[in-house]
Amino acid sequence: MESEFLNWLDGKLPANALQELGPGDDAAVLRLHDQARCVITSDMLSDGVDFVLDECDWTRIGRKALAVNLSDLAAMAAQPVAALISLMLPCTQAPDLARQLVQGLIPLAQEFDVAIAGGDTNTWAGGLVISITAIGVATEHGLLRRDGAHVGDQILASGQFGGSILGKHFDFTPRVSEALLLNARYDIHAATDVSDGLSLDLSHIADASGCGALIRTDRVPIAEAAHQCAKLQPGPSSALDHALSDGEDFELLLAVPPEEADRILADQPLDVPLTRIGEFIARPGLWEHTGAGEPQPLEPRGYVH
Amino acid sequence: MESEFLNWLDGKLPANALQELGPGDDAAVLRLHDQARCVITSDMLSDGVDFVLDECDWTRIGRKALAVNLSDLAAMAAQPVAALISLMLPCTQAPDLARQLVQGLIPLAQEFDVAIAGGDTNTWAGGLVISITAIGVATEHGLLRRDGAHVGDQILASGQFGGSILGKHFDFTPRVSEALLLNARYDIHAATDVSDGLSLDLSHIADASGCGALIRTDRVPIAEAAHQCAKLQPGPSSALDHALSDGEDFELLLAVPPEEADRILADQPLDVPLTRIGEFIARPGLWEHTGAGEPQPLEPRGYVH
Repeated sequence: MESEFLNWLDGKLPANALQELGPGDDAAVLRLHDQARCVITSDMLSDGVDFVLDECDWTRIGRKALAVNLSDLAAMAAQPVAALISLMLPCTQAPDLARQLVQGLIPLAQEFDVAIAGGDTNTWAGGLVISITAIGVATEHGLLRRDGAHVGDQILASGQFGGSILGKHFDFTPRVSEALLLNARYDIHAATDVSDGLSLDLSHIADASGCGALIRTDRVPIAEAAHQCAKLQPGPSSALDHALSDGEDFELLLAVPPEEADRILADQPLDVPLTRIGEFIARPGLWEHTGAGEPQPLEPRGYVH
Repeated sequence: MESEFLNWLDGKLPANALQELGPGDDAAVLRLHDQARCVITSDMLSDGVDFVLDECDWTRIGRKALAVNLSDLAAMAAQPVAALISLMLPCTQAPDLARQLVQGLIPLAQEFDVAIAGGDTNTWAGGLVISITAIGVATEHGLLRRDGAHVGDQILASGQFGGSILGKHFDFTPRVSEALLLNARYDIHAATDVSDGLSLDLSHIADASGCGALIRTDRVPIAEAAHQCAKLQPGPSSALDHALSDGEDFELLLAVPPEEADRILADQPLDVPLTRIGEFIARPGLWEHTGAGEPQPLEPRGYVH
């Protein structure tokens, strides 16, 4: 079905000014700028783990598969350029499924000027697997890594946390424009996106930077969906627990020097709010402070692959 | 299991001089040369289609998954730089399988100076899917595309064809060095690698170049394995049929101007033989000539995805 699918695709795929050669040859070619720093990331999604094929709109699955990759580029403050889309399709649903997946991701690719530069289309007797590789470039402002946080840096977060499973995990906007703007205007030391869970991804920055992190749990912006999840599943998990440990918020976590953090918080330069939720500290590990009493150890929780 | 697997990987993965940031952050970073042309390809393999997990050495599967991608870079005459390895692992076999797959591909990565720059590791209830993205760069000699063949160009092929299923599909050497050498020394108009089948991949060059192709079927180098396949499966398929239509030979097909073809054939600059197997012609489609009589139409056959 690959050649038929490629014929159907012809003319539908967005390009990018840096794309010299797109789908149809043995490989795609991007003509990057002088001294280009090429940023590459891959995320793989599967039926039953990242979505339930029989229970959702297939276009939303395609959109999500691209969006999670763009979120990784955003976490580096890289400018997206292209993506390769590889599909392993259940043979009974292959042509229709492939088309809907691609139709779902094309508007997002267009929005972020991402060329669909190629990929691989296959069928098998198993379930749906989607693997997307996104390619970006560093801007003149450089890239944001995880390992640059200093002791004393403030932890800023975009948006709200928890309960993404109720819908945001499909429909979130990857924070590409936000990361590019912040990196262009401000001095940011480190960044990541929250894919596995706020507390777990925060611990990734702290560990990579050789320091600890203290979360002010009374300041974590809790999404309405986190409250709904806490109500829907009565038990020990509060809305705050959902905010700290649910995966797939796809918000930005930033390490910012204190004065710069004050400036960002006063400016509020994004359409989405930025909130100070804690700081990086010398003592290793993850700690929580509720606003009263002593900091307590906090177990990093989230989605473990 | 991802963090445990990444810990196990630590120190085992080859790097590359162009790799600025490897696994562990949100994305990998490659620092490419001035005016870099970045060449990118993805191939996805699955249990039951490209290998049978229960019947083969898992290290050979890992090696194959990288080798098919390097073959695509070779088909463009691109210099390999890095690869991203994404795994969807059956949860019952995950840690051991992941390690053996990676152990199988590391020697090949080292041989071709390919950094393992990142990827994604997941488990699920389904079968094994491996998706690898390989990144290369164009050399000063440019890239070889499929669409550059001219009428009158000779068709040169490396190696021998057919019967790859008996073992070569696992253990082939991607023709990276060969393609780089040929592209540096000679005037090559177009190239591809034979992944789907000699006749089918040849028709891809002809179609992309807006011409036809005439195969001298009496000159096609037939692998010993093709003869074995013809014997093992008695029926209408001859060894030549296997050579023309079996997939996964991973040899090079080149379109070369006649005098340059004479020079290459006289030089025989590779460790593997180069053979003239026909020419590109004005009449569209694929044609065979047995050495006697008139050319006859030849149905392009091979692996259809």
